[in-house]
Amino acid sequence: MTNKGQILRLLNYKNLLKHLQTLGFKKVFSDNISDTLEISSSLVRKDFGNFGITGNRKGGYDIDSILAKIDEILGKDEIQKVIVIGVGRIGEALMSYQGFAKEGIQIVAGFDTDTKKIGNTGPVPVYPIDKLNDYINDNNIRICILTVPQMVAKHTVDLLQTTSIGGILNFTPIKFQSTADITINNINIVHELENLIYVVNKQKEKHNEKV
Amino acid sequence: MTNKGQILRLLNYKNLLKHLQTLGFKKVFSDNISDTLEISSSLVRKDFGNFGITGNRKGGYDIDSILAKIDEILGKDEIQKVIVIGVGRIGEALMSYQGFAKEGIQIVAGFDTDTKKIGNTGPVPVYPIDKLNDYINDNNIRICILTVPQMVAKHTVDLLQTTSIGGILNFTPIKFQSTADITINNINIVHELENLIYVVNKQKEKHNEKV
Repeated sequence: MTNKGQILRLLNYKNLLKHLQTLGFKKVFSDNISDTLEISSSLVRKDFGNFGITGNRKGGYDIDSILAKIDEILGKDEIQKVIVIGVGRIGEALMSYQGFAKEGIQIVAGFDTDTKKIGNTGPVPVYPIDKLNDYINDNNIRICILTVPQMVAKHTVDLLQTTSIGGILNFTPIKFQSTADITINNINIVHELENLIYVVNKQKEKHNEKV
Repeated sequence: MTNKGQILRLLNYKNLLKHLQTLGFKKVFSDNISDTLEISSSLVRKDFGNFGITGNRKGGYDIDSILAKIDEILGKDEIQKVIVIGVGRIGEALMSYQGFAKEGIQIVAGFDTDTKKIGNTGPVPVYPIDKLNDYINDNNIRICILTVPQMVAKHTVDLLQTTSIGGILNFTPIKFQSTADITINNINIVHELENLIYVVNKQKEKHNEKV
């Protein structure tokens, strides 16, 4: 299990199953999952088989057991400490995002060059960027969110190569490749929006042709 | 050209070429592009062929021409008006995000149920959610960013089905499927982070085994 698609499927199973739990469900069938997530039920059964989750066509799968297994696979036994580098609007929004805590993720610090942002006034302390290296190594931080301005993104990623950081969630417009030591996942919000605009415009053209 | 991968490649070409332009480049070779973006140069040439961009191995491709062609394909002749539904921290951050304007994207309005957020004080006006339907149809809005709380996400998407909205960039934790009328792209920041944590923990385990 190292494929990003598999892990994201696992996370989608988890979300769905937690939702079903709140509705009072105890059991689930692979067909329910495949219908909701629009993947084949054989893929669901294959994934569950790979995780060592057993069930049967008649009785379905026990939701509690699947969720426990998924957390075990994801290594959810310890709190994951994450730092945010670049406390602009997006960085700030992520630092106070409520959705992380219930998944065992804690944003423990922010870093910025702007002295006005540095301090302990918010929910998460913000330190000057020149403390970044020491903080990461002293606290054995392995994951960071990168929300610095585009012009310093490359420099920041270069800096991180010599630290204990092993994963970067990159929100800058620069698309970085993972290195031997650091896995970099890129989220480009502008590209996501441009892609959507393209698709919608094409749909409109098709519609206009029909009219 | 309807494949999301192709459009995202196109956007990556554009980013890279604009960057090269600022360095004074006039021409580019498919090998330069493929090295930087880590895709095969034959794929780059195939894409360019599909877009009707011509060049040759010796002289390379003219950057201005490629960029003009890409903008033409993306339909960049008019400003794209986008609304933000749910003016929480992430919604607010996106409403004042600087990176959209230079791509011809304008966030024209925000919508929220919280009366404290409604008004014209920020860079973008915020309206009450019960004006959503009229605003969309009066202004022929086709794209929205969804940043409402999870518990009202489904209800909001249902509401949008009867409007002129054709595309949703969904930041809520619920994974929505596109419908016949609306293309929905999901960005789940918690899942992205959980996936990264999983990969990094696996790397650490591998490293520890070696030591």
